[in-house]
Amino acid sequence: MSISSTVPTMNARDMEFQLFEVLGVEGLTDRPDYAEHDAISLRATLDVARQIAADKFQTHYREADLSEPVLENGKVRLLPQVKEALDAFCEAGFMNADRPLDEGGMSLPFSVYQACLACFQAANVGTSSYNFLTFSGANVIRSFGTEDQKRLYMNPMLEGRFLGTMCLSEPQAGSGLADIRTRAVPQADGSYLLKGSKMWISAGHHELSENIVHLVLARIDGAPPGTRGISLFIVPRRRVEDDGGAGGVTGQDNDISVVGLNHKMGYRATVNALLNFGENDACRAELLGEPNKGLSHMFFMMNEARISVGVGAAMLGVAGHLYSREYALTRHQGRHPGAKDPALPPVPIIEHADVRRMLLTQKSYAEGALALCLYAATLVDDMRTAETGAAREHASLLLEFLTPIVKSWPSEFCLEANKLAIQVLGGYGYTRDYPVEQFYRDNRLNMIHEGTNGIQAVDLVGRKIRLKDGAALEAVLSEIEAEIGAGHGTRTAGHARQLERAIGDVRACSNALRQLDDDMRLQTANAPYYLDMLGHVIVAWMWLRQARVAAAALTAGVSEAEESFYEGKLAACRYFFEYELGRTEHWGRILTSQNDLFLRVHSDWC
Amino acid sequence: MSISSTVPTMNARDMEFQLFEVLGVEGLTDRPDYAEHDAISLRATLDVARQIAADKFQTHYREADLSEPVLENGKVRLLPQVKEALDAFCEAGFMNADRPLDEGGMSLPFSVYQACLACFQAANVGTSSYNFLTFSGANVIRSFGTEDQKRLYMNPMLEGRFLGTMCLSEPQAGSGLADIRTRAVPQADGSYLLKGSKMWISAGHHELSENIVHLVLARIDGAPPGTRGISLFIVPRRRVEDDGGAGGVTGQDNDISVVGLNHKMGYRATVNALLNFGENDACRAELLGEPNKGLSHMFFMMNEARISVGVGAAMLGVAGHLYSREYALTRHQGRHPGAKDPALPPVPIIEHADVRRMLLTQKSYAEGALALCLYAATLVDDMRTAETGAAREHASLLLEFLTPIVKSWPSEFCLEANKLAIQVLGGYGYTRDYPVEQFYRDNRLNMIHEGTNGIQAVDLVGRKIRLKDGAALEAVLSEIEAEIGAGHGTRTAGHARQLERAIGDVRACSNALRQLDDDMRLQTANAPYYLDMLGHVIVAWMWLRQARVAAAALTAGVSEAEESFYEGKLAACRYFFEYELGRTEHWGRILTSQNDLFLRVHSDWC
Repeated sequence: MSISSTVPTMNARDMEFQLFEVLGVEGLTDRPDYAEHDAISLRATLDVARQIAADKFQTHYREADLSEPVLENGKVRLLPQVKEALDAFCEAGFMNADRPLDEGGMSLPFSVYQACLACFQAANVGTSSYNFLTFSGANVIRSFGTEDQKRLYMNPMLEGRFLGTMCLSEPQAGSGLADIRTRAVPQADGSYLLKGSKMWISAGHHELSENIVHLVLARIDGAPPGTRGISLFIVPRRRVEDDGGAGGVTGQDNDISVVGLNHKMGYRATVNALLNFGENDACRAELLGEPNKGLSHMFFMMNEARISVGVGAAMLGVAGHLYSREYALTRHQGRHPGAKDPALPPVPIIEHADVRRMLLTQKSYAEGALALCLYAATLVDDMRTAETGAAREHASLLLEFLTPIVKSWPSEFCLEANKLAIQVLGGYGYTRDYPVEQFYRDNRLNMIHEGTNGIQAVDLVGRKIRLKDGAALEAVLSEIEAEIGAGHGTRTAGHARQLERAIGDVRACSNALRQLDDDMRLQTANAPYYLDMLGHVIVAWMWLRQARVAAAALTAGVSEAEESFYEGKLAACRYFFEYELGRTEHWGRILTSQNDLFLRVHSDWC
Repeated sequence: MSISSTVPTMNARDMEFQLFEVLGVEGLTDRPDYAEHDAISLRATLDVARQIAADKFQTHYREADLSEPVLENGKVRLLPQVKEALDAFCEAGFMNADRPLDEGGMSLPFSVYQACLACFQAANVGTSSYNFLTFSGANVIRSFGTEDQKRLYMNPMLEGRFLGTMCLSEPQAGSGLADIRTRAVPQADGSYLLKGSKMWISAGHHELSENIVHLVLARIDGAPPGTRGISLFIVPRRRVEDDGGAGGVTGQDNDISVVGLNHKMGYRATVNALLNFGENDACRAELLGEPNKGLSHMFFMMNEARISVGVGAAMLGVAGHLYSREYALTRHQGRHPGAKDPALPPVPIIEHADVRRMLLTQKSYAEGALALCLYAATLVDDMRTAETGAAREHASLLLEFLTPIVKSWPSEFCLEANKLAIQVLGGYGYTRDYPVEQFYRDNRLNMIHEGTNGIQAVDLVGRKIRLKDGAALEAVLSEIEAEIGAGHGTRTAGHARQLERAIGDVRACSNALRQLDDDMRLQTANAPYYLDMLGHVIVAWMWLRQARVAAAALTAGVSEAEESFYEGKLAACRYFFEYELGRTEHWGRILTSQNDLFLRVHSDWC
């Protein structure tokens, strides 16, 4: 069936609202870096992204799930539509759209670029990832590579001729990068020979491009143990020849073999492989950046990669909400409680309180998560282009603190949203004839990759709340307090007061945690609850902003269709404050109790 | 890979604990109905179930998922192992084990029978369902059928020669049974001709058995509209000849055609079909029971079917807990926070607080859910065989009230448990090489079938809390209060006091809801929160019982291995009280607020 192709997977009106009405991205075009743009050109770029996403990505979303990548005679077979989609993405300039014009980019603000990328993730998160990995890798080379490396690797990546991967995990070391074993042996010519296995390599092997550029973490022989002895390498699938110009791919394979593909629950458009480097001692690698700085080089782009995970999770949430909403409007079944006259026709199921509950929950999670991710993206814009150094530093501090939440909250709660999307469709939702079960399966990955949510929680509690001796947390809370004081009218003032109380709880919990600075095990023992609590408070803030803008628009007077849009924003905000924010009290009690249960139990009691 | 076959999917020690130490099922053998049994024979029967489940069901769990049923030339192709498993189940007597010996059964208490069935569900929930549907259908025929119907249909079903289905839903009417359209036209010979489509028919078509006995809801021409005009019919796939003896299958197909199979996200061992009855006006049906009483006849076995859904969900939770626990004990990765010396070896991940959190959460959900289901099963025993009429009625009242929770709570929270099982395995958990993602996909169905959880919530709030003017609720709360007063020592007294406060909250919320008896829409608008709240209180009760028994055993003195078992019970109980029960305060505030948000919002705001 092609049902999945007929319902939009993103809401253009909401994207317009979030970017222009809430975040005011038009104002960014006053900055010299974005001076090429105005509101019209930003909107036009978004339209192009949306159109290509609908025409080239969404159209094979289901088929790519059904036709999982297959390894045959050492080659990975993928749907031909994947390559067509990636080519269209490149041709429209989306590999590089946030770079300046003179670097071949579009000078697009990062936030608007993220919104464009969100359209592709909403349409087909699996196919999108090939190009996403490529421009992320290219960014690392731009930051740390030599001019030759940029010419020979980065440029072909940005043209889409070479695609990229990131090779961090190993079979014995997933999240524990301190224990990676891949060896790099220095050669007389300054290059290295690599030897080792890398696991979970998305886009690790395929025939989509002339070449694949692997960015690989490995240890140079003699390097210190642990994370301080890890270096980053450029490892092309096929060796590259330096002809002094654009370079080119030689026919020579670089001794990288595919041990096998991973067969995943979802995200199947993205091939995922276990790779062996240097089985025949002939895998040439180039050091990227400084020796033993590999982790920090790789993590340089991690904040942006984590925003991207958040956006992907949010957009799957949006897609599920839109699909189940459409279903609920058109499917007739049952009657209101107490109105059981069978002579009356059944009502559209959106009339049932429980279906509305499930739709508002999805909406509040998905649009709240998207608001958070786009806000984080504007912080990247400010880091890059705000007028003063102080403003750039402030944005950097906020982003540093918020990143674990931007990655985790959408992946946790938009998965929950997708669960509800299935529930709205009932038995139909459980079948593969409708897209909601695929949204759910695809979204399940987001809690795991780019640092599991458990690791994000420890990062937040063990590092971020003590960042600059607590100044990062205070900076975030001050931003929220500024919103609370931003002049709320009758429709939002109650929510603002409620958020103010929640801020007080956050401060109390944070202080309780800071008292444990000398006992890191106890300090982080309940970290996931702090992540959830702060996440809910931050998303409540996102909803309060949206509701304030929506209420102002309604006061100013709008058309009937627009009225529904803005009332929807206020309804979702009300849902979030009246049904969700109260959960933070429970999490707060756990945190202030400093419960040590998870430390005291023996392993064999669990 | 056969990884999934090597880790037990159920915990025999825990089953022993729950049945014999907590529920005291040995005492049931004092009743005349179960006098054939003693503790030894009950345990032996459980062992047989566990062994067949491990040898015949678990062994093809993954393969049945990978080899989905296929419709070819009108026939459904299934793995041959499915039939072998079902035959072994029948041969061991599990189709009929809770019936008296003189009916060919084993005189097994229902609770012990459920525990046996739980072993099969834990091992392979999809393959189990063919026989489960069959004995459920046979029970309906036993209750409402004529002697001829029992001879011609029920007996072959209990022998496993005929398999059964239940045909309720139609494509246009899933949960809304008032609107079913399948017609039954009376014939001169007393039989009926059936015409209509039935959707979501599990085990609806296959070649596993000589015949399939469909129990079909339909309207006799001229019947009143709505649920009062629905009758129940026996509709064999192949017509049956009455030779005055055991009967037999004629070669004549009964005009039932398979329109197609549903391709589900999970539960794939169970074929699921859309069937057309009477396309050629030649589908013969026999009325089962009284005309227009079809719904109540069908729902006669619904309480037991809903216990079965709860058990299935609980056992998937158990299986995920056991698997991820085994993984966490053997997988080494990372070091303790603050102990970052890379020269030290990585620790088993079960050492990490977050992994323990995820394991204890799973344990508290899965074993708590199982405790609830087995308790409900003992209520069936009491309904059937308690000495006094008053005791039988009391058990019936408790079960009637608890059924929506027994069905919903395990399906909601053990799905969450399975989500955590994946998370413990990280990337591996997301692949199909490990069974946890299949547990998660299979379990997702349980929130939907046998009445969605939303419908269970409305049943609980709209009907059950006013049952006998509130006496059913009070009966349940009194049982909990009896446990609270059951003499708790230092290790559980605090939990008992906490549960007492929660009972007070339940009473307050229930009273607030009862005030809305005249406004059923508002009364049920927040029903899912009442379901969650009461569910958590009931499961806390289940944990308090278990913890009291465990604490007493520890006081009496036990072996080291046994000490770990009982300490595990106390740890999971402590987790549930200290990390879970507090959530009821949030749900309680929503309920007492009588929030009408879901009624006031317009559909196009959602």
